[in-house]
Order: sequence, then structure tokens, then C-alpha cells
Amino acid sequence: METVRIWSSELGQHVGEQVRLSGWVHRLRELANVSFLILRDAKGLAQIVVEDRAVAAQLGALHAESVVHVVGTVVAVPQAPGGVELHAPAVELVSASAAPPPFDMFRPTIKAQLPTILDHAPLALRHPRHRAIFQLSAASMRGFRETLRGLDFTEIQTPKIVASATEGGANVFAIEYFGQKAYLAQSPQFYKQTMVGVFERVFEVAPVFRAEPHDTPRHLNEYVSLDCELGFIRDHRDVQAVLTQALAGMVAGMQQDAADALALLKVRLPAVPAKIPAIHFSEALELIFRETGEDARHEPDLAPAHERWLGEWARTQHGSDFLFVWGYPLHKRPFYTHPDPDRPGYSNGFDLLFRGLELVTGGQRLHRYADYLAALAERGLPAEPFEGYLMAFKYGMPPHGGFAIGLERWLARLIEAPNVRETTLFPRDLNRLAP
Amino acid sequence: METVRIWSSELGQHVGEQVRLSGWVHRLRELANVSFLILRDAKGLAQIVVEDRAVAAQLGALHAESVVHVVGTVVAVPQAPGGVELHAPAVELVSASAAPPPFDMFRPTIKAQLPTILDHAPLALRHPRHRAIFQLSAASMRGFRETLRGLDFTEIQTPKIVASATEGGANVFAIEYFGQKAYLAQSPQFYKQTMVGVFERVFEVAPVFRAEPHDTPRHLNEYVSLDCELGFIRDHRDVQAVLTQALAGMVAGMQQDAADALALLKVRLPAVPAKIPAIHFSEALELIFRETGEDARHEPDLAPAHERWLGEWARTQHGSDFLFVWGYPLHKRPFYTHPDPDRPGYSNGFDLLFRGLELVTGGQRLHRYADYLAALAERGLPAEPFEGYLMAFKYGMPPHGGFAIGLERWLARLIEAPNVRETTLFPRDLNRLAP
Repeated sequence: METVRIWSSELGQHVGEQVRLSGWVHRLRELANVSFLILRDAKGLAQIVVEDRAVAAQLGALHAESVVHVVGTVVAVPQAPGGVELHAPAVELVSASAAPPPFDMFRPTIKAQLPTILDHAPLALRHPRHRAIFQLSAASMRGFRETLRGLDFTEIQTPKIVASATEGGANVFAIEYFGQKAYLAQSPQFYKQTMVGVFERVFEVAPVFRAEPHDTPRHLNEYVSLDCELGFIRDHRDVQAVLTQALAGMVAGMQQDAADALALLKVRLPAVPAKIPAIHFSEALELIFRETGEDARHEPDLAPAHERWLGEWARTQHGSDFLFVWGYPLHKRPFYTHPDPDRPGYSNGFDLLFRGLELVTGGQRLHRYADYLAALAERGLPAEPFEGYLMAFKYGMPPHGGFAIGLERWLARLIEAPNVRETTLFPRDLNRLAP
Repeated sequence: METVRIWSSELGQHVGEQVRLSGWVHRLRELANVSFLILRDAKGLAQIVVEDRAVAAQLGALHAESVVHVVGTVVAVPQAPGGVELHAPAVELVSASAAPPPFDMFRPTIKAQLPTILDHAPLALRHPRHRAIFQLSAASMRGFRETLRGLDFTEIQTPKIVASATEGGANVFAIEYFGQKAYLAQSPQFYKQTMVGVFERVFEVAPVFRAEPHDTPRHLNEYVSLDCELGFIRDHRDVQAVLTQALAGMVAGMQQDAADALALLKVRLPAVPAKIPAIHFSEALELIFRETGEDARHEPDLAPAHERWLGEWARTQHGSDFLFVWGYPLHKRPFYTHPDPDRPGYSNGFDLLFRGLELVTGGQRLHRYADYLAALAERGLPAEPFEGYLMAFKYGMPPHGGFAIGLERWLARLIEAPNVRETTLFPRDLNRLAP
């Protein structure tokens, strides 16, 4: 069909004109004297009024999801969705769907259990609600990158096949690498720190791999990590300031690029305060004890219930969806964590809670070569597997720190999805390797 | 030091003022009555004139690459590099380098063999020339993404752990996945095609993994692939048009973000013509026969020497650094390749030569479910391992196609590096897994 194609979202600009739409048969409603074709393209839905019996029959013979071109006249109709319809269509079949979809794609939500939806991801992702989630994903990534670029950060891409396990051993996937053992990177931690020596400020958006044998609604074995690292910091507070800006940029990115998706999913967007409230780990446990009577003051970490309680506290006391908890006990953080010079046994590491769930881990890192050698020795780790990493510190490195945001977890909290698989394109877990 | 830090590149805006620079001791030149400290930060180099004997001694005790703060007064000096120097400095040591670097970092190029440079990547990447390469990398990625976003493409992130080998079997890395066999994705091919059903136009910038046991200057076992796929195309020519725009965007990105790096590396930037010349595979072989007497007309692929010859031909005959060779024999392309409807046995697949080397592979794909079943059967491949992929076609898919650019290879051709490892941050090859 020679008529130039327009997007469904552009119909309103072409009232009275003949246009071509192209897309998928989202729904065909056949009434006594008229049929309504709902066509779906990448931008949305369009209503097409079919009065011609032959065209109605042509469409009636197709399964939903068949791909068609439709040429017709744009008519302004106040009661139509979006205020416009296509009338008097001619339809050309591009590609027939070979079977009816196993669930209705036109309902507001797919009426199937999550495993069924995930098994049929190539189809289910076409549903407007599912698709909208990944519009938010793309917009979040762009917002992250552009914010950091504006702050003089340089994008890097670091290797995912590595010679040794990043954080010290457990939960890595092993690869057979030309007769050697190699591993999938659990994080770009070592490389992003190394690159502070080159660019001072770096970020990376890339997959990370965790061989954790957990089957929970918040764990994935592969996910996208938004990583950042910066040099010449005072301490972890400079890292928190950049993280705050990155989050604000991700929210702004969604508002700019994906306003329709936000509306469709009824996303309650968080306000990112200019300064996110922060509480020291030990003060958080004191507070919980004082307010709830639960004494976790000798615990080395926050329980999920305590994270939820603190999230609620931040919301009611500070009007914030976000809360920094900083100063976790040093021995619970990785060996490269910088100690708090003012509180022996505590670190300059932090977590960021978003609506009561850990979303980000970050902190200040050690930067002196001798401190690395001492930290490894103290944990009984040999220096040799870390030789390439240690080289960065041997030859002079400024105080630095960084953070990592889990993209799928960010989206899950944002749309309040109970299971992070709902915000993962093609999730990988203990039992799922396909599609 | 309380004075606010400025970048070395900002000195010219602060003549007469007291400022702080922070960075690495790039070089110390000690003359009879004066020393010159060259300080390197993320933005460049600064010359600092040290007349105070105590400060000179303080600096003289440091190895190169030590990290320092320097407070001094900016003085305009026409004969100084960049026309400005810092005078009367006070120096504060931030972090001492623990050893002298194994090669001089201040020379125009590192005087060492490539393996030595790669062994010391955490240090060598700090060298201005090496660092500049990865500024071009970051700028290329941004240009790619922004161009495609401007053309209504949506960014995706697809899984790298997959259940079956993408293109049919060989050269995949195997992973132990909770007792199952899994593989590292050789490309996002299946997923990006699947996502055409969702967003119509998608792109991905992510690592790909090839277990090819080749040790050549142009092969890597892990590299960054700039992938793109789009629906509702006429044929491969619409893909070529998008690729042309993406390349122009990558060049523009470098000009905007990395002009200094382009200048330092003396990059001969390609002009990307609005329409890149294209030659059919069989016509290319005819041309080579006619012009050189070499008869490769029965070969199913282009030899590297013929690619080089064609690159030269495109330059002299069309004034273009780029040349599309399209219509490769169908049996030499992957099973999902769309045939040329007008030439039996040939495909709508293409390669893009950049200065005589294959940089991009792309083409139109099959889009009808029945065609996929037939193509798999014809090659003796079972349909079952491809079930998730085939689902996308079962439920209606428009004509589509796409391409993949190897980021490191792009950079290597651009700076005319003889070995692609020079444009790879931390290369992975047959013999190299670290750093």
C-alpha cells in the first residue's frame, strides 16, 4: 500500500485525510451491522470502523495478532477512544497469526498466572501493560546515563568473563574457557574502581550474574546493573549526592519519554528530595528498639521487616520514599569497603531503601594499596588472584566510591509489582532458562 | 585543602586566581633552579611551576602516578602548553604510588609491546592516548543510542544466559546452570527479533560472547555489540538506511563529546554519505574478476583481500569509506535470513565494509512462521530448541531486519589500530582472561 504510514498516536493530526496504519490485530468486535477493529502498533491503539461486509469477512478470518496494513479516512468522533477513528478501511494482510493467542491480549490485564505469562513472553510482552514496563526501563536507563554524563561521567563496558570471583567466592557461574576455569562477573566492581584511575567518574549499564540458588520474588540470576563509581570524594556522602541526582534523572527520564506508560500503569512516582534522609545503621536499630520494642541491636544487618519499618518511618517522618542507611558493620561488607574513621568496626558503606526495600548498595572504598593488602590478609584471602585489581591501587588512586542500582528491582518497586520477574524482559532463575 | 577544585581544562578561565587542581603526578622535570610538575586529571594535563625548594623536594620523593592536590595561582604564559600554568604551588599528597610505573606514562606513546601494555591495563589505560580511545567508545555509544532514539527505537536489555546456541551450535561458551547446561549468548539476535513484535524498533548495546578458538588481530572472545532491529521494512534497504544514520550519529557523537580525543589520536574521521554505495555480492565478484583477473565468482563469501580491494574501489570510485555488499549466497547466511525474491539462491543479507574490513553484518530476516519451520527443516535443525523464538513468528510478525556493529572493531578501524585488542578495555582472548 503506497500511502505513507503514520503511527496510531498521530491520527489526531490527520483528521479528514486518508492515511495508512500498520500493526497487529489487537481485537475484532463484530456487531450486527458494523465491526470494530482495534489495531495495535508500537505507539498505541487505534479504532477502525468496518462497515464493508467483505472487509469484515476478511478480518473475521484472521486470528488476533495477525499483522495488517489498513488504509482509511481519519474521522473525529468525540466518543471514540482518543477522539478519532479510521473509517472506510481497506485491509492488506501482511502476516497471518498461525494460531489464536492462548490468552486475550485485549483485556486490561492478561488473565493468566505469572509462569504462563513468562512462558509466553514473546507474546505477553506485546500487551500494552507489559510493554509499558519496558518503556519505563528504557527511559530509566536514558535518564541515568544522561544525568551522569552531565556530571562528567564516562560510560564504560567491562568484561563479563572474569578469571576470579569478584566478591570472594560463592555464587558465581563457572564457564569452561578454552580449558581454563573462568566465571561470569557478579558485578563490574573491580573494573569500575580501576577505571576511576582513568576517567575519575565512570558508569556502566550491563548485565550481572549471580548463581544464588534462591527462588524468591526478589532474586534473579541475571539482571541489569546501573553502576557508577567516582573519585576525589570526601567520603560516602559525595556518592550519595550523585546517586540522588541519578535517581532524580531516572524519574525525569520516565516523565519525558514514557508519560503514557506511567499513566497506563498508574505509577505513583516518587519525589526524589534534594537531600535524601540518612540514618546510621546503629541508630536505625536503636530507633526500631525504641519504637517497636524489637531488639536487633546486636544484629550485623537489617532484616527485611526492619527495612520495611524504616521505609514507613522515612515516609511518615521525612515525607520521603527513600532512606539511606549507612555505616553497616565493616565485617558484613566486602573487603574493599572503607571503614568509618570515626566509628571503629563500622563502615562508610550504605544501602538505599526505596519504599522499604533495599534498592541500591554503595559506599566509599579503600583507596590505598597497603590498606588493600591488609584487608585481604585480615580476611584470609590471598592477594594473587586480585593482582590486576590491586595494580590500580599500587599506582595511586584517589578516595573513591560508588553504587549499583538493580534495574528490574527499581521497576518492580516503582510499579509495586510483587515479583521482580514481572519487570524483567526474559527472566533467568533457578527453574527458568527460556524463552 | 578547602579551595574548590577545578579541572585542568578550566585553568584558562581562572587566570590570576588561586585554584586547586587534583590528579596524578604525570611527570616531574627537575631542572637546576626550577621543577615542572605535569599533573594529569580526567580532563587533561596541567603544567605547574615549582620554585620552592621544599615543595620540589616533596614532589621529588614521590613516584609518578601518586595522587595529589595542588593549590596555586593561575598565570597566563604564552609559551606554556595551553597558554596557562600554575605558579607558587602548595602540594598535598592524597595517595602515594607504591612503585615507579614499569613504563614512562609521560611519553607520547607507551614504549612497550602490546602484551605488556595489556598486562598492565589498569595503569596503561591512564595514558592520554589509551584513554582517548575509550572516550571515542563512550561517544560512539551515545551517538548510536541518541540517533536511534530519535528514530523511535526503544532500548532493550536481553539475557546473556541462554538455553541453546543462537546460530546453530558451534563456538558457544557453556555454563553450568544449576545442574542444567546453558550457554552464553553469541548475539541478541533471537531476542531483538522477538522484541520487534513488541516495540517494532529496538536496539541494544551489550556484550556478546564467541568461543572461537582463533588468535588473530581481529577476533575477540567477548565484545560489545551495537544491535538494532526494525519492523515494517520493505527489505534490507530500509535496514541499510537506518544503519547509515546510526553511523553518522556515532561520528557526530564523537565530534560533540570527544573532539580532544579525535585530535590527540589524529583520527581521520569518515564522511558518512547520505546514501552509502551498495554492490551486489555477485557483481562484486564479477568486478574483481574484470579488474584484477582473480576469479572468485564461485566462492560463497568474500576473502579478506577482496574486501580490501572493494574498500579501495569504493574510496576511489565513490569517494566513500563505506561500502554495502549485499545479496550473499543464502546457504552461507544463518537460517533466519530472508531470501532475495528476485534472485534464487541469494539473500537479502548484507555486510558493511568500512575501509575494506567487514564492520557490520545485517539483513532482512524471515518473518512468516511457516518459512521458519521450512528453513529449519531444510538445514536439518529441530524446531524444539527454538520454540520460544518461533513463538514470536507464530503470533504474527511484520517484515523486519537489523544489524550488529562490533564496537571495538569500529574503533580499531577508526584509529587504524592493527589489533582490535588496542581498542578493547580489558580484552578476552584465547590466552587472556585478566586483568
